[in-house]
Amino acid sequence: MDVALREIAAQLGGELIGDGELRISRIGTLEGATPETITFLSNPRYAAQLAGSSAGCVIVGPAQRDAAIARGAAIVADEPYLYYARLTQWWARRTRRGAAAGVHPSAVIDATARIDPSASIGALCVIGAGAAIGAGTRLAPRVTVGDGCRIGARCLLHSGVVIGADGFGFAPHDGRWEKIEQLGAVRIGDDVEIGANTCIDRGALEDTVIEDGVKLDNLIQIGHNVRVGAHTAMAGCVGVAGSATIGAHCTIGGGAVVLGHLSLADHVHISAASVVMRSIRQPGQYSGVFPIDDNAAWEKNAATLRQLHTLRERIRVLEKMQSENKRQP
Amino acid sequence: MDVALREIAAQLGGELIGDGELRISRIGTLEGATPETITFLSNPRYAAQLAGSSAGCVIVGPAQRDAAIARGAAIVADEPYLYYARLTQWWARRTRRGAAAGVHPSAVIDATARIDPSASIGALCVIGAGAAIGAGTRLAPRVTVGDGCRIGARCLLHSGVVIGADGFGFAPHDGRWEKIEQLGAVRIGDDVEIGANTCIDRGALEDTVIEDGVKLDNLIQIGHNVRVGAHTAMAGCVGVAGSATIGAHCTIGGGAVVLGHLSLADHVHISAASVVMRSIRQPGQYSGVFPIDDNAAWEKNAATLRQLHTLRERIRVLEKMQSENKRQP
Amino acid sequence: MDVALREIAAQLGGELIGDGELRISRIGTLEGATPETITFLSNPRYAAQLAGSSAGCVIVGPAQRDAAIARGAAIVADEPYLYYARLTQWWARRTRRGAAAGVHPSAVIDATARIDPSASIGALCVIGAGAAIGAGTRLAPRVTVGDGCRIGARCLLHSGVVIGADGFGFAPHDGRWEKIEQLGAVRIGDDVEIGANTCIDRGALEDTVIEDGVKLDNLIQIGHNVRVGAHTAMAGCVGVAGSATIGAHCTIGGGAVVLGHLSLADHVHISAASVVMRSIRQPGQYSGVFPIDDNAAWEKNAATLRQLHTLRERIRVLEKMQSENKRQP
Repeated sequence: MDVALREIAAQLGGELIGDGELRISRIGTLEGATPETITFLSNPRYAAQLAGSSAGCVIVGPAQRDAAIARGAAIVADEPYLYYARLTQWWARRTRRGAAAGVHPSAVIDATARIDPSASIGALCVIGAGAAIGAGTRLAPRVTVGDGCRIGARCLLHSGVVIGADGFGFAPHDGRWEKIEQLGAVRIGDDVEIGANTCIDRGALEDTVIEDGVKLDNLIQIGHNVRVGAHTAMAGCVGVAGSATIGAHCTIGGGAVVLGHLSLADHVHISAASVVMRSIRQPGQYSGVFPIDDNAAWEKNAATLRQLHTLRERIRVLEKMQSENKRQP
Repeated sequence: MDVALREIAAQLGGELIGDGELRISRIGTLEGATPETITFLSNPRYAAQLAGSSAGCVIVGPAQRDAAIARGAAIVADEPYLYYARLTQWWARRTRRGAAAGVHPSAVIDATARIDPSASIGALCVIGAGAAIGAGTRLAPRVTVGDGCRIGARCLLHSGVVIGADGFGFAPHDGRWEKIEQLGAVRIGDDVEIGANTCIDRGALEDTVIEDGVKLDNLIQIGHNVRVGAHTAMAGCVGVAGSATIGAHCTIGGGAVVLGHLSLADHVHISAASVVMRSIRQPGQYSGVFPIDDNAAWEKNAATLRQLHTLRERIRVLEKMQSENKRQP
Repeated sequence: MDVALREIAAQLGGELIGDGELRISRIGTLEGATPETITFLSNPRYAAQLAGSSAGCVIVGPAQRDAAIARGAAIVADEPYLYYARLTQWWARRTRRGAAAGVHPSAVIDATARIDPSASIGALCVIGAGAAIGAGTRLAPRVTVGDGCRIGARCLLHSGVVIGADGFGFAPHDGRWEKIEQLGAVRIGDDVEIGANTCIDRGALEDTVIEDGVKLDNLIQIGHNVRVGAHTAMAGCVGVAGSATIGAHCTIGGGAVVLGHLSLADHVHISAASVVMRSIRQPGQYSGVFPIDDNAAWEKNAATLRQLHTLRERIRVLEKMQSENKRQP
């Protein structure tokens, strides 16, 4: 693709400064940009790279306006990262073949499933009895949507996603496990994106619920009866155990684990690889990761850690002796 | 569905107290139950919710009998959670279309695979040469069973499961990795359930073995030559590295990791997200997770942790000085 | 299969000592080997098992030559583990039906994809527009290769692999997430192996790159714009967040997490389940795992850990008092 800079500004807004006839053939990063590249600066940390970039045009916020103009064409926008996001969308629509509405002939669809005519169901998908797929939703190839599960509008499910496998429920009996049939389903709101090979299990009695605007990365496990609040985002490899309730506008870092039957308030942010072992009632950032170190140092610290409560005792004893010493004149 | 309470008791046993003609149309939780709902109380922690529940009938153990009767109809059973499990099974048989025996026409089955006529092979499954699927076993859509792998009777494999991919084996040579062909297979016992997108690799020389009654949740990785003992259960996202031997009747919490070539005794219970780095010979509960905290507190504690062994040294020095002080009268 | 020992040595080299007419029908481990078994000893830790093994022939290094001969036939090779690897390859070629070149009729291939005639595309694979598959590469059944993604020569992709799902990129706006279209692709070198259900996302602007000889186990997540250097190996369940750059000849243990925008030098080795939170510039072994313990001990230590920085303060106070005591004669 090759467009004049003024076409971009005409479509997406912002204040264009410089040569509107400049031809742009590529979106790129500041580093490694060519004169045909449009790029963006959203994180002030990278402001130093601005002057040295060969980009044809840089999208910047008002604070970087002068610095950007000093080096060439610029688009000034209130939220340059958002502008960049919309630019990628516009670019994709112009350069990529969109997913066609309709069902790929290789997909296996139960006769009782309801699929909106504007939805796009990719190759080799399987959609079960009574399932429903909303308007404009796209299933990439090789997605499973189980019986009775409902997906809202404008969702995007990537390859390998499994919606509505059985939740993990068993009653122990005589040293064996008796299956608890999972009678609920999965209900997914609008504008949800679900990454490759992510699994969302059906509820035991009620439905597992993913609210509007949730974004899930790849290889995430959502247990039965979980509720994920609107506009919450989770990075790859997160595991959420059964019956956890996660608020709206939360973020959960990659590889984090949320134990079952817990609640997270709205606007809770969990750092990558942290394990949530208790409910969190207050918004904020929470972490719990063993700091990485060279192996020899780790071994010494880990060995000491296993005696940590005895160290505390020894400090107590020392403190007691110290205070007794003081009393003895 | 809509059944009289006495029908349930007639099918599943227990002592029915109250109106046997009561119509039940739903299984639910204590909280939010309606007069048409049958529910259960197994965890005494929730006993306080009993009096306030609007459920038509509550399944309880003998200890809760009086409290249950005081509020309406009840079924008294020795193991109410087990009763509930069997109720869900009975309910599912009456309300859901069971998986039909036979092979879905879209599945790709090698001519040399042996599939019991009572097994059910879902859409878009792939079964390799010489593989065997036992009586009553069900493969959900989009399952792979590799060449030579054998699945027992009455198993349930969910969508995306991969049985018999190559184990991860390479010999280092001149800075490269030389593949070790994985000549074993996977052997799975009876009554095993395997969650969505879980992988069980084929053995290098011998088979990887999953014994009877094992229950694996979603997105679990079982490496080559692992042996999982009978009736062991693992929650989602667990990783078991190659040649680990896990006993019978173990439980492994979600996101836990078991390193390779280790042994776990029978009745070992690993907490979620814990990392098993040495063999465990004694039954019991084992844990190892960095406690989550608000980010600022975590940062301070994590920084100190990296110097933990020096703290121990400093305590030793203090103790030594203290004892020397004592000796000096 | 049943071969004379001299055939093995003729094909694979090494010094054969003993009866070359001995019939070998099985490759096995030292333990449990039969007189028809050929086995190997590479780790000196297992040398004690040598004398007691019933194996027909043992592959050993020069240092074990005498001990091996004392018990029966042997093949002496400089690198016995490498010899074993090549023996499995030779064995597999003679005993297993190789994957036939060509595309399985059930696979769904875009008309614009370029597939080398010597490549083998398994059942129910999906290959997108403009994708390319190199010579001798094999896709197991049920693999997705997205639009524009390129796989080199002699690669092996196991079932459930997803190459080229969208990277996880969103711009926050008014409490919602605005999608950043992922305009890059995935570029995979030669001789790469990718385990079952592993995902490699397409880049946001540039490509995600996996260099030659990389080996990835099952259920790994590789985020967008990641670069994995040549001959690096990762065990199962690893997560690598977006824009991380991992050097060549690294190893990453199972369940480890590498955060985004970090760099790892060549020859960095990360222990299983460790979390890489900062760039690592020096080759070496790095670890960060909470040591597992019986649950009661862990609870005490974890509780103390949450006050660790206050313990350090208390030690400081004690030290200060101690030194003041000293000054007071």
